[in-house]
Amino acid sequence: MKFFINDPHHVVNEGIEGLLTNPELTRLDTFPEIKVVLRTKTDKSQVSVISGGGSGHEPAHAGFVGQGMLTAAVCGEIFASPSVEAVLSAILATTGDNGCVLIIKNYTGDRLNFGLAAEQARAMGYKVETVIVGDDIALGKDVQRRGLAGTLFVHKTAGALAASGASLEKVAAMARKVAGQTYSIGLSLEEGQKFRAPEASRLKPSEAELGLGIHGEPGVETISMDKADALMKKAVDRLTMYLPDNKKKYALLLNNLGSVTPVEMNVLRYAFRRSALARQVKYIVGPAPLMTSLNMNGFSLSLLELDNDITEALLHKASPASWCMEEFGEITSIPGPELPDIIPFTASTDEKNARIIRVIAEELIASEKELNALDEKVGDGDAGSTFATGARKILELEDRLPLADTEALFTSLGRILARETGGSSGVLLSIMFTGAGNAYREELHPGKALLRGLQRMKALGGAEEGQRTMIDALQPAFNVLSENGSLERAAQKAREGADKTREIVDTDFGRSSYLSEKSLKGIPDPGAEAVARVLEKLAEIKA
Amino acid sequence: MKFFINDPHHVVNEGIEGLLTNPELTRLDTFPEIKVVLRTKTDKSQVSVISGGGSGHEPAHAGFVGQGMLTAAVCGEIFASPSVEAVLSAILATTGDNGCVLIIKNYTGDRLNFGLAAEQARAMGYKVETVIVGDDIALGKDVQRRGLAGTLFVHKTAGALAASGASLEKVAAMARKVAGQTYSIGLSLEEGQKFRAPEASRLKPSEAELGLGIHGEPGVETISMDKADALMKKAVDRLTMYLPDNKKKYALLLNNLGSVTPVEMNVLRYAFRRSALARQVKYIVGPAPLMTSLNMNGFSLSLLELDNDITEALLHKASPASWCMEEFGEITSIPGPELPDIIPFTASTDEKNARIIRVIAEELIASEKELNALDEKVGDGDAGSTFATGARKILELEDRLPLADTEALFTSLGRILARETGGSSGVLLSIMFTGAGNAYREELHPGKALLRGLQRMKALGGAEEGQRTMIDALQPAFNVLSENGSLERAAQKAREGADKTREIVDTDFGRSSYLSEKSLKGIPDPGAEAVARVLEKLAEIKA
Repeated sequence: MKFFINDPHHVVNEGIEGLLTNPELTRLDTFPEIKVVLRTKTDKSQVSVISGGGSGHEPAHAGFVGQGMLTAAVCGEIFASPSVEAVLSAILATTGDNGCVLIIKNYTGDRLNFGLAAEQARAMGYKVETVIVGDDIALGKDVQRRGLAGTLFVHKTAGALAASGASLEKVAAMARKVAGQTYSIGLSLEEGQKFRAPEASRLKPSEAELGLGIHGEPGVETISMDKADALMKKAVDRLTMYLPDNKKKYALLLNNLGSVTPVEMNVLRYAFRRSALARQVKYIVGPAPLMTSLNMNGFSLSLLELDNDITEALLHKASPASWCMEEFGEITSIPGPELPDIIPFTASTDEKNARIIRVIAEELIASEKELNALDEKVGDGDAGSTFATGARKILELEDRLPLADTEALFTSLGRILARETGGSSGVLLSIMFTGAGNAYREELHPGKALLRGLQRMKALGGAEEGQRTMIDALQPAFNVLSENGSLERAAQKAREGADKTREIVDTDFGRSSYLSEKSLKGIPDPGAEAVARVLEKLAEIKA
Repeated sequence: MKFFINDPHHVVNEGIEGLLTNPELTRLDTFPEIKVVLRTKTDKSQVSVISGGGSGHEPAHAGFVGQGMLTAAVCGEIFASPSVEAVLSAILATTGDNGCVLIIKNYTGDRLNFGLAAEQARAMGYKVETVIVGDDIALGKDVQRRGLAGTLFVHKTAGALAASGASLEKVAAMARKVAGQTYSIGLSLEEGQKFRAPEASRLKPSEAELGLGIHGEPGVETISMDKADALMKKAVDRLTMYLPDNKKKYALLLNNLGSVTPVEMNVLRYAFRRSALARQVKYIVGPAPLMTSLNMNGFSLSLLELDNDITEALLHKASPASWCMEEFGEITSIPGPELPDIIPFTASTDEKNARIIRVIAEELIASEKELNALDEKVGDGDAGSTFATGARKILELEDRLPLADTEALFTSLGRILARETGGSSGVLLSIMFTGAGNAYREELHPGKALLRGLQRMKALGGAEEGQRTMIDALQPAFNVLSENGSLERAAQKAREGADKTREIVDTDFGRSSYLSEKSLKGIPDPGAEAVARVLEKLAEIKA
């Protein structure tokens, strides 16, 4: 595992410095010993809303400082609470006559340090309220609950009230209410790493964890690794077990614990959407990294029970870019426009043409993995799948093909390839077959028609012979066929053309053009190789 | 590597379904064969702005559909262009009399499919403009340029103009202008994986890649793995080489290519901030996953040369949550509030006390790794570092300590630990020493004073003996010392207490309370172990 860092010990400080390019944010100049991020312009007539804790949870907490959310964040080292003096500095720097609220995740360290700083500030004459957040339901509702990502709901609602000028009592009351009706659970596939050489994982490839914290603590339960739907169901079931037995509406916070990709987070969002619980969810925050645990490969769900005041506070504008909430609705569709039928011809039979098509398609399907493997080295690794997908569709539609009508057959193959095969090879072949169909009307000669289709493909695609494409095999083969040469001769020419692509290392066409000579040397172009294989197979069968 | 998926072949479709919980978005009901995501309410009097391409780049492209950006996105399979019919469907479904602009990343497949669909739509009477984006400068400005994350600048500016009712000509002209002055470069440490078993990496642990695409193509250059600052410098230098030689201002898009954590992205932002180029940057989009390449461990930089029209279009409101731009300013600080001096006492010397302090501190520093290793098993792995950090600071400040004044010495140790040691053990010890200082004034007996300090720690921290904390060693040892027992006896009692914690598996205090019996059994509490080691060392030295 490699990381974009300079030194494991500087990650926290440099991460904070990066955040500060936002002119809305600044820090106390006692940085880095005291890591307090605060708004550049603090309105001391508003209640100050302060949170923080150990680092390694980015964007929490400093990423949520800004209009409508936190007034200041106090950051510790990775997974370690900030010092009492750091918390005290944040209070003194931002708090006016209307006081401040400290939002504290329920960990001993945070409780002690924020609590001690609150005592010290009160002794200096400041009005300070502390709110402890324990949204974790991993062990149930009544035992010790950790503060997890649901804490962000408290930041958001308290921040909204403070921004609208509410009193200390009202801001604190909102924070306590939201803390009291927020429920979170985490699920992880792999632990986070402290930006050092990876440590042995607790988890086997067959295992996942449910009910974990955000500091590398093991989950309360080791569960089987499973599909996303099944994992989401486990998390939702556990959450549902501890939700109040009512029909309340909720806001959902879907948190990426570190290194899950956006598309996987959306797969999880879709899995949640299909749970019974989804019907009670009106809003969603994320999916996004909100309160991470280093690069943990996991997610957490937090549910906040809504009422009118809470909903209003959630919808209040907030400037931190890391906060984004939208409505959580049903998945809808609208009718797609009508498109021409894929095969607008009458089906007919022709044994020879059927046999040719079947041999070609089966050879492409059989070569899928080998062609993909070639393409991994010189392209994006999907050439074999592209050909095989088209081939499978053609076999599937064989009964509907106008096999006895060469022009209509070429046109139909063009349409199938255009519709069913996404890759560029599919469309290039589609252009070639469509062109061949149009040409056959005049030529009445399959070889000459294919040669003219190939010209059309070259014109639109921009490639010529000698540029490591399938043209290097198609061109010599079609030259032979258009002159009534034998299939054996065409196959031989295609093979020569395909083999020559192994030596073409200087090309400015297609993805291969981005590759170095070293990467290309000795590897044939997968498209040309596919063409040679197909023609060799046809020649072999015929012989 | 484990993934949150159901089936590698369903990732794209399920990711799109997840996105559609946003009521602003819907899809054509020809999904999933045709994957077109579009706005629920399309205003056909506005120019339609359509983009798309292969999937695996989430949130691009569907994540940028919404007011002020894309009207529709056409999604292909992973790294494969969508079909011509899919593009045609998007055009027909969203385009009114004022026409549409197709924004096409410069890849053969996208050029062919979007280009063919544009031709077909034009034949049906629609007004269609196509804009090809090639922002990649990996191989220079004049050779074939791929479309990379800079394409999002084109989406944003064209979308803004369309939303404000501009004509097809104006929207297309803006898109072409922005495409013409956007410059991108990517850098990666590890390739993305197609949600399958990991393939062997091209890159050794000592290597990184510069100038790569977003489809798994190798970079144009293999470079040495290096610190974040050095890697950012390589990317910035390459970009600078191809920027127009002027003093123009830029918007920067800092793109997470897949699995880089938020804090690392901020380390990279900080590295960029310190480059000479940063002085020309006025706005930043991200850092965030914007146009990813599966779970690639890499980033890309895109720079857009600004003018007034472009700036206005960038600042125009857009609803997609994945788009976030803020000003890119200088890093600032404000003065921290004044805090009490760390040692507000006069330094004095006392050989015995100095020796005791040195022995304790050195033992804690020597035990750092072993205590961390214990804590990895039962906590968050930092217990040893917490003790060692405090110990180092105390040694550093030894000359300033009031060594001859026991009360002031206890209080000073409390202040140093509170200020310099973030972890909860540090504050708990701080509370103990501060309490011991206050108690010494009355007791004039170090053992009795420490015992009373311990009571204070227990009251604030909430733990009792028998709950796997350092109290299990401190309590029996201080009981001995407060009764004038010998150091040897105190050390023996501390060791017994620490050893007993190996058998405590049922506790509701501290992080250990979240662990299973299996995880705890046989492992001593790291805090109690530290106390026992220190006292044993003191007894040994004295003997």
